[in-house]
Amino acid sequence: MAEFAIGVDLGATKIEAALIDRAGSLLDLARVPTDHEDGAEIVMVRVIACIDQLMDQVDEDEIAGIGVGTPGVIDIRNGTVVIAGNLGWRNLPMRRVIAGLLGAVSWERRVWLDNDTNVAVLGEFYYGAGQNARHMLYVTIGTGVGSGMILDGRLYRGATGGAGEIGHIVLDPEGRHCSCGRRGCLETLISGPSIVYQARALLERGMPSSLDHTALDSLSAIDVVSAAQTGDWLARSVLENAGVYLGMVLAHYIEINNPELIIVGGGVGAAAGELMLASAREVIEARTFPSHFEAMRITLPALGGSSGAMGAAALVWYEMGILPDRLTEE
Amino acid sequence: MAEFAIGVDLGATKIEAALIDRAGSLLDLARVPTDHEDGAEIVMVRVIACIDQLMDQVDEDEIAGIGVGTPGVIDIRNGTVVIAGNLGWRNLPMRRVIAGLLGAVSWERRVWLDNDTNVAVLGEFYYGAGQNARHMLYVTIGTGVGSGMILDGRLYRGATGGAGEIGHIVLDPEGRHCSCGRRGCLETLISGPSIVYQARALLERGMPSSLDHTALDSLSAIDVVSAAQTGDWLARSVLENAGVYLGMVLAHYIEINNPELIIVGGGVGAAAGELMLASAREVIEARTFPSHFEAMRITLPALGGSSGAMGAAALVWYEMGILPDRLTEE
Repeated sequence: MAEFAIGVDLGATKIEAALIDRAGSLLDLARVPTDHEDGAEIVMVRVIACIDQLMDQVDEDEIAGIGVGTPGVIDIRNGTVVIAGNLGWRNLPMRRVIAGLLGAVSWERRVWLDNDTNVAVLGEFYYGAGQNARHMLYVTIGTGVGSGMILDGRLYRGATGGAGEIGHIVLDPEGRHCSCGRRGCLETLISGPSIVYQARALLERGMPSSLDHTALDSLSAIDVVSAAQTGDWLARSVLENAGVYLGMVLAHYIEINNPELIIVGGGVGAAAGELMLASAREVIEARTFPSHFEAMRITLPALGGSSGAMGAAALVWYEMGILPDRLTEE
Repeated sequence: MAEFAIGVDLGATKIEAALIDRAGSLLDLARVPTDHEDGAEIVMVRVIACIDQLMDQVDEDEIAGIGVGTPGVIDIRNGTVVIAGNLGWRNLPMRRVIAGLLGAVSWERRVWLDNDTNVAVLGEFYYGAGQNARHMLYVTIGTGVGSGMILDGRLYRGATGGAGEIGHIVLDPEGRHCSCGRRGCLETLISGPSIVYQARALLERGMPSSLDHTALDSLSAIDVVSAAQTGDWLARSVLENAGVYLGMVLAHYIEINNPELIIVGGGVGAAAGELMLASAREVIEARTFPSHFEAMRITLPALGGSSGAMGAAALVWYEMGILPDRLTEE
């Protein structure tokens, strides 16, 4: 049986592709900028260039397949990107395009697409912090807030592929407008832009802080995290407050799905780490059954920068029905 | 292959057992009072009497197994009732007891236990309103509030068997005390006793109503439902209000698990019906993605009074790996 898989992490800023074996060992990595302003076709050509580079490392018939993780709404059955707002794509038949550029129709049966949160949870499930878990949630906190779910050892997508939309759980119906058209979604309270909004609001009121009051327009969520790490009170309280809201939603999740593991990642989530998770844990403990709370761990992702590409490669194993060894051995 | 299953619905007031075939046709039904004050052993003897009556209808080797649905926390692997507060039981090895009373150790491999909400969702999934669903939630509203979940065509129990505890999602941390020790859980807002509490509070303030202001101590949730059905404003507003809280929690559920079907049952839920569901639906529509809302239906249970026993029989098929025909044919 083919022993290698290629995973492609197609992000708004960079394309990263990894060649891994079943055990998750990384054989080679390719990385290029996305420059999606150049158009979908040029981006696809860049994806193929990355794949070609990795294919040179092993015999083609040793490659089980190619997995692609991409933001947006994905039709996994047809292998199309239905809509990817950040990239400006709509109804892109990515599987067919990739197989076509690889020059063999037979690749169509070996290319799988899924969205970035599903790929992320698969990566941690096969090769990261979730290697001993059957019931886990991967939360990503960045520009947006989303999640991917493994339930009973399987990726859970829901009736219409919309499972895990925790970023759009409404916490405050009178709250700030959300990109989804409603108000007070979790995303309006803990995403990167929301953290910046809250820090700026406090700075504008003249609260003391090591953050630069005169450069509010260029303030980023990572600036807030960095200030918090050096003990800045304003920055710490903004992140702590975000953790409280995160905890409220995770408490609901835990009462409903009784997971054993929650991983909080994404650019902002992974950077903030315990600055956000400590207050989240407190809220969760107060709002869940003790038996649910004690059965559950909240942690950061274990995979480093290549987690998206490794997760996309894990999608190949998953779609072929090859679960992590620990589950097939049961 | 054995073509019949026996299901036992072991409730706090009555024991009901059904003999059904694979298609869900009811061959015979047995029913006796539980009288659990007589002690667990006597109750078990009554269960066996019901089973014996049904076994007389067909050859014993045509019976695939016996399923039992019971309230409380169940250790499904060992077939024990860990704790069932209403019945006063703790660590009752029910599977062993039933097999012993049936006089053959071999029955141990053919007796399955699960809690009443899991059995209820299985019954509707195999034979009721969920016959076309793969992703469904069954909510029971009675003395307590609980739920059972089918995800991707399989019963979902969670990491420690505690999935579906929607009754203990905290909506109002400053709210009324809950039996679980916390405050403001959904159960304190929509259960039968909570509905009575709210109706009494309004009656005590002298609000006009067709309900008897002089018999507040004997007021039941079903009295409130009956009054609402005749148009009583106070009763209607209590149920409508309960629907709003139910809708808030279901909106969270929908954003997380993206179901195609939600069934609201239980003594109070099934009786109140649209008096509660209409306001729930409004809240859900306002608080979920349109694509999630449109993919989903909320309805009442389709199985009548024998739903618990039929669901317990469905547990036999489920545990034997026999899914509804529509799923195995895929």
